[in-house]
Amino acid sequence: MPANKILHLHLESFRKRPALFHLTEERWRAAARRHRAAAKRLRVTMGWDSDIIGEALKTADVMINSNPPRDKLRIRAPRLKWIQTTGAGIDSLLPLDWLPGDIALTNNRGAHGPKAEDSCAMAISLLNARLPQMMAAQHNHAWQPVYTTPVAGKTAVVIGFGDLGQGAGRAAKKLGARVIAVTRSGKAVRPADAVYPISRIDRVLPMADFVIVTAPLTPQTRNLLDRRRLDLLKPEAALVNIGRSPVVDYDALREKLAQGTLAGALLDVFQPEPLPDNSPLWDTPNLVITPHVSCDDPRYVDRLLDFWFENFARFLAGKRLKNLVDRKLGY
Amino acid sequence: MPANKILHLHLESFRKRPALFHLTEERWRAAARRHRAAAKRLRVTMGWDSDIIGEALKTADVMINSNPPRDKLRIRAPRLKWIQTTGAGIDSLLPLDWLPGDIALTNNRGAHGPKAEDSCAMAISLLNARLPQMMAAQHNHAWQPVYTTPVAGKTAVVIGFGDLGQGAGRAAKKLGARVIAVTRSGKAVRPADAVYPISRIDRVLPMADFVIVTAPLTPQTRNLLDRRRLDLLKPEAALVNIGRSPVVDYDALREKLAQGTLAGALLDVFQPEPLPDNSPLWDTPNLVITPHVSCDDPRYVDRLLDFWFENFARFLAGKRLKNLVDRKLGY
Repeated sequence: MPANKILHLHLESFRKRPALFHLTEERWRAAARRHRAAAKRLRVTMGWDSDIIGEALKTADVMINSNPPRDKLRIRAPRLKWIQTTGAGIDSLLPLDWLPGDIALTNNRGAHGPKAEDSCAMAISLLNARLPQMMAAQHNHAWQPVYTTPVAGKTAVVIGFGDLGQGAGRAAKKLGARVIAVTRSGKAVRPADAVYPISRIDRVLPMADFVIVTAPLTPQTRNLLDRRRLDLLKPEAALVNIGRSPVVDYDALREKLAQGTLAGALLDVFQPEPLPDNSPLWDTPNLVITPHVSCDDPRYVDRLLDFWFENFARFLAGKRLKNLVDRKLGY
Repeated sequence: MPANKILHLHLESFRKRPALFHLTEERWRAAARRHRAAAKRLRVTMGWDSDIIGEALKTADVMINSNPPRDKLRIRAPRLKWIQTTGAGIDSLLPLDWLPGDIALTNNRGAHGPKAEDSCAMAISLLNARLPQMMAAQHNHAWQPVYTTPVAGKTAVVIGFGDLGQGAGRAAKKLGARVIAVTRSGKAVRPADAVYPISRIDRVLPMADFVIVTAPLTPQTRNLLDRRRLDLLKPEAALVNIGRSPVVDYDALREKLAQGTLAGALLDVFQPEPLPDNSPLWDTPNLVITPHVSCDDPRYVDRLLDFWFENFARFLAGKRLKNLVDRKLGY
């Protein structure tokens, strides 16, 4: 690419998403100051809720947009070569048949690991301590001690072992748990003590003291933890979902928590979000609800833009981009 | 001591204490099976709420009792040489002027570290994530995300750095925090990154993102975190108390939490316990109340008895006992 050519970058934000994810003027300017030379190669437009997307597509070379137009994209965006999403999960864009083969799609995986690690350390330790039960007692001004053994030596089964799953695995290891990863391939991956392919998931669920769901949503993972599989868990086990909600049957989970055939759960992801105020999940016993915060650091957009600039250097140099989405696997 | 002499061990339990701490027949028998040879040297009596204590004292050589009679002990217990308490804190026995100089007093410090470590990992991570705020929102069926940066790089100030404090320190280190210990002497101790003597506590409190109180209750620590010192904390800081409640001014703490000049707290210790149901602490915003469970493993008595048998071997061999209470320091 000629070194003097100015490229058109379009940034798209959606007001209904939390402000954390907004590509604001202020954040863009701060990032451009951190990457001064590369920023000089760019002409930037910023859209909100697709207000100027039609115009922008006509000349955009590159775009950061988690919900790009899919209809006749090649015709409407003749120069577009690369789309970056702001999130890691791209399940809302699947299947990718709308995406021309010569437009690269990259996601923001890798941004969520450290926060996911903290959130899983919190989730494992509080579910192990039966804190939801004691906090319900607190609400009733009732002194009801529950004594539990430490996490050390217990078993955490982590479903999906990408960025989030490895964060969950590090958290469980820190607390002294044994970590079993369940992945597509079943190939060894750190820091797991053992790895099983997803085809053998029924063998590992009965071993779990903690199940941590971090898998992306794909046709293969949808409803993976259905009622039958949840029934394979020990009644003393607890479940954490920081991945995608349709991977777990929440109705079955709720019933198990209410019946006491599962000790506790922490859910961070729902469908739809925000969780409607009449959802029976809110008041389910021993269930902690966090509003999709487990993997998101408030410095999110700053880091996304730093990552994008790093990748943009690769783009200019004609190198393979990082975080390319695999069109077949869908993540 | 002649190898054939049978010694009288008296075990005393108190029904008002949680069952976790009861020296039951069943637990004693299991321990005696684990330490068969030593157990053969013992004649054992078991009392509840001091029902047979007068008789027992007449012949007891050794005793496990957290609330031994103090009046004329030497006269009533002419053969008594050693008292072991079931807990670590012996503040309820202070001052020790009732204890004859030739009766050894040992406590159960060292039993609480691993559980304290888990509890502090939980407390730090959930206070850092502002979970109490989100759980209050859950109670109101309200979706109110709070995005926080991970613990890594933040500062934990641990007050007291014995068994519990070192557990707290390990927990904070695991989560990537910097650990500053505040101790009587101010001498370096692992795993703290820095240690300050208690005389300089006013210098470290403003640095804290988390303050973790683990100090024993002594005349020197009573009301250590009074209103003035709590006001030295950053409004974003959070406080954890797993030591003894009179070390912290709970009225001042409650007011700061209600005013939002402190971000959160987790309290595990109170005076009296159980916390009365009309205490204003129960409903204080951003305050998690756990009912004195942070440092107690359900295997508590089994481990205490194993420790006691180990110490009993030292006693028989005329060696210095482990966990001797320092009469001057009071712990």
